Amino acid sequence: MCRWLAYLGSPVLLEDLLYKPKHSLIVQSLHSQLGAEETNGDGFGIGWYGAPEIPAVFRSTEPAWNDRNLRELAGHVSAGAVFAHIRASTGSPVQQTNCHPFRHGRRLWMHNGLIHEFSKVKRDLVLEVDPSLYPEMEGTTDSEVLFHLALTFGLEDDPPAAVARAVGLVEEVGERHGVEHPIQMTVATTDGERLWAFRYSSIGRSRSLFFSTDVSTLRAHNIGNPMLAGISDEARLVVSEPLGDLAGAWNEVPEASYGVVQPGRDELLAFTPRR
Amino acid sequence: MCRWLAYLGSPVLLEDLLYKPKHSLIVQSLHSQLGAEETNGDGFGIGWYGAPEIPAVFRSTEPAWNDRNLRELAGHVSAGAVFAHIRASTGSPVQQTNCHPFRHGRRLWMHNGLIHEFSKVKRDLVLEVDPSLYPEMEGTTDSEVLFHLALTFGLEDDPPAAVARAVGLVEEVGERHGVEHPIQMTVATTDGERLWAFRYSSIGRSRSLFFSTDVSTLRAHNIGNPMLAGISDEARLVVSEPLGDLAGAWNEVPEASYGVVQPGRDELLAFTPRR
Amino acid sequence: MCRWLAYLGSPVLLEDLLYKPKHSLIVQSLHSQLGAEETNGDGFGIGWYGAPEIPAVFRSTEPAWNDRNLRELAGHVSAGAVFAHIRASTGSPVQQTNCHPFRHGRRLWMHNGLIHEFSKVKRDLVLEVDPSLYPEMEGTTDSEVLFHLALTFGLEDDPPAAVARAVGLVEEVGERHGVEHPIQMTVATTDGERLWAFRYSSIGRSRSLFFSTDVSTLRAHNIGNPMLAGISDEARLVVSEPLGDLAGAWNEVPEASYGVVQPGRDELLAFTPRR
Amino acid sequence: MCRWLAYLGSPVLLEDLLYKPKHSLIVQSLHSQLGAEETNGDGFGIGWYGAPEIPAVFRSTEPAWNDRNLRELAGHVSAGAVFAHIRASTGSPVQQTNCHPFRHGRRLWMHNGLIHEFSKVKRDLVLEVDPSLYPEMEGTTDSEVLFHLALTFGLEDDPPAAVARAVGLVEEVGERHGVEHPIQMTVATTDGERLWAFRYSSIGRSRSLFFSTDVSTLRAHNIGNPMLAGISDEARLVVSEPLGDLAGAWNEVPEASYGVVQPGRDELLAFTPRR
Repeated sequence: MCRWLAYLGSPVLLEDLLYKPKHSLIVQSLHSQLGAEETNGDGFGIGWYGAPEIPAVFRSTEPAWNDRNLRELAGHVSAGAVFAHIRASTGSPVQQTNCHPFRHGRRLWMHNGLIHEFSKVKRDLVLEVDPSLYPEMEGTTDSEVLFHLALTFGLEDDPPAAVARAVGLVEEVGERHGVEHPIQMTVATTDGERLWAFRYSSIGRSRSLFFSTDVSTLRAHNIGNPMLAGISDEARLVVSEPLGDLAGAWNEVPEASYGVVQPGRDELLAFTPRR
Repeated sequence: MCRWLAYLGSPVLLEDLLYKPKHSLIVQSLHSQLGAEETNGDGFGIGWYGAPEIPAVFRSTEPAWNDRNLRELAGHVSAGAVFAHIRASTGSPVQQTNCHPFRHGRRLWMHNGLIHEFSKVKRDLVLEVDPSLYPEMEGTTDSEVLFHLALTFGLEDDPPAAVARAVGLVEEVGERHGVEHPIQMTVATTDGERLWAFRYSSIGRSRSLFFSTDVSTLRAHNIGNPMLAGISDEARLVVSEPLGDLAGAWNEVPEASYGVVQPGRDELLAFTPRR
Repeated sequence: MCRWLAYLGSPVLLEDLLYKPKHSLIVQSLHSQLGAEETNGDGFGIGWYGAPEIPAVFRSTEPAWNDRNLRELAGHVSAGAVFAHIRASTGSPVQQTNCHPFRHGRRLWMHNGLIHEFSKVKRDLVLEVDPSLYPEMEGTTDSEVLFHLALTFGLEDDPPAAVARAVGLVEEVGERHGVEHPIQMTVATTDGERLWAFRYSSIGRSRSLFFSTDVSTLRAHNIGNPMLAGISDEARLVVSEPLGDLAGAWNEVPEASYGVVQPGRDELLAFTPRR
Repeated sequence: MCRWLAYLGSPVLLEDLLYKPKHSLIVQSLHSQLGAEETNGDGFGIGWYGAPEIPAVFRSTEPAWNDRNLRELAGHVSAGAVFAHIRASTGSPVQQTNCHPFRHGRRLWMHNGLIHEFSKVKRDLVLEVDPSLYPEMEGTTDSEVLFHLALTFGLEDDPPAAVARAVGLVEEVGERHGVEHPIQMTVATTDGERLWAFRYSSIGRSRSLFFSTDVSTLRAHNIGNPMLAGISDEARLVVSEPLGDLAGAWNEVPEASYGVVQPGRDELLAFTPRR
């Protein structure tokens, strides 16, 4: 049900992130190894931060593996903060407005997983979205609603707290409707300067999530890898599944936790929904 | 902001309805003469009733004039109840789920016009949709919300009363939010056996709407017209604008009124929103 | 590199052919078991014969598994001669004009496989296409060129002879350009009354191809199967891979041979390219 | 039958070129004033030169006016050499490979107009394309064939001579097939450093083409225009039709002539096909 990649560091050509790794996101669009679905061909999206204040978002309903415009862009766009997402629909229509990442001002959001029995709980959840944010929702996914709940609860000021409250609400509403395990998720959000990645599920068996070992170690493991040439020591990747199978390069994000990638020391902390 | 065509009568090849008339709906997709917008190229949709209980709906985001699949279908599908709609977006995304006609069970719905300042009133309107119908809404248009309001108010049992209440609600909510002229519409709805067409706007200057003169008169005016060959005397077209310029073939639906096409005598009555 | 299905028999709802079997073509678009590629998500096409002389062709660049229009059509269209094809591109662009089936007059054609090193031999092959047929080629696939070579060599009069000459030419031109194994193919062609299916490859290891056991036997094996209810005893399916795993239902077409499905007795014969 | 814009100068945000002018190319996609067709909604394309040697090309089958990805890109990409093209098909399919600009190495090409009765002459013209270039043609337009003829005749070394020979050949082959006025064209081509624009037609009434007055004059006429802020004095636009209606800003390219935009003095010369 989707795979994603988030990058924060010195500017890198999108091609190096998206196409060059052996088990790249583009390869995963055809053959994911750890995903709930092997094929992630129901559209894709990328977001990146450039000179304008608002990040660019390019989304398409085509499978990532055969989209020529994605390849063209990837060969020409460099950025220091990049989100990329490939979609396997869990039922909602394949349309650009259902493709990730979602955007609000400078903030991007993407999600792998689902709100279980979404049609049962959607109305109650949507009612909790701040009325001023309500008209911004353009698609019909659980992921976009979750984003707007987090925005409602202060995502722009304190992401971990806002996500904890949004997830808490989803669990509360789910339980009220008799949904056994209301949520399954890995989520990434960024403002272009910091990156937060969450791994959580009501059932306690969350979708896979990995973060890259620090760059100096990575370089030692990947001599000559074009993706690593010239990137900063602070650069970090967070991914649904490893982009290659080098020993030591990838670390699993523990169950029920979240990481913060930021200037200075990154953090890895426990995540608990808050009702 | 859209043009449409509704047909009820003996089975006719879609091609004869959609492509053969001189000022056909396909021509109107490039050059509408009476529409608010000349170009209606933001997707299209057709609905028709065949052997299965549920009518078929084919919708595409491409302009109708260059869609090859539409031409193929039109050459092969015949039906006795047909809806066709070409879209000029008033802002909502160009995606299949925003293309008309919309469907609920055996019922189809299409709309030309708009709910003014929809982003202001959307949330309040959506809250009035029956919670059991709420999850069915897949797109983001005012038209789909209007349809679900009408369904909430009994569209399946008494279309004129249900539409009167839905429109009344839109005007009420609009006024509450300071919207000057809340609604502009022509609407068609059918269950495959009867067809209702409404023309109304808060400002009293509604989008154009015409119904065809009875078939025997039409035949006299259109000798040899392939669209009329072999169709029943009870057949009727309701259209946003005339499909040709023959004198006597088309009659304007009066402001604030609705028509019913049905077995036996058709009707034309006044339409008043009900709050 | 593609999977396909050809049906000839009494009229059947497309849904019963395309969606209802356990290992249907739609399932194969995500997970083919015997294909060269597991995923066949680079567009699809269907062709069927109705009242008009020319068969209808509906082609889309979307993956078959998520195309809503295909599902709508499949629920409403019945036909006695049906071609369906799902594509895994071997490099040529994903566009409707590269989707199968291809059509010339009443004749349809679809192909699984490839002409090896097509860019080397394309020009020489295209030069052999009858100049009157040349402008009809709208796409850029090897499959469409092969079709037009077969048309040039008399496909409308004697399919086995025409295909033998077309394949012979491909091998001749390939060898001239130093291509080791010039062609790999299963091909189906029909005029709506008879169906020819070919299995051949220069290397002698052709893509998989199966034909259904006769209907009375099939019925015995598939009690209650909706696809078989009410279809004629002469009906026959030819498919890239079995649609289910019932013992006795499917027979492999032997290497280097072709079958003819027709009124009366079907045939299975050896296929030899002719230079 | 298409409209285009070519820019060479100091880097400019695509948005300023494509969206901000009053009668921008995006506006022209809905309402061209001087084109053979008012609506140019059959796809579009842009090409730009960035850091990599090969320019980027982004092409889409959607109408330019409603394509969200184009708007996103336009807000984030700046370039000093930009081609943009909106298409009104003259019959060939609406697919990315038929959208302009076309690319070969560092060179871009776009065309407004047509080769008359192309299906009659296509085969003979294609045969004249250098066999090594032949496999590069991916679409089915006259424009792409014309490009490859020009490449065959030395477009990379001497554009005016190569285009003269390509057009001469089209006229020769056209006459041989009894085509009255074989070609109608405005063409732009660039290598990212120089820009050539041609206006010619066999009938002597060519599609409209304009070049911008020099920037210092333009600035005087467009005080505060964001498109002009900060661009170099040597910058030049060549366009199918003026982007605004300021007196003095636009100059028509004379019939049967071509211009060269380049470092130093630009040129405007007579164009004569060469047989």
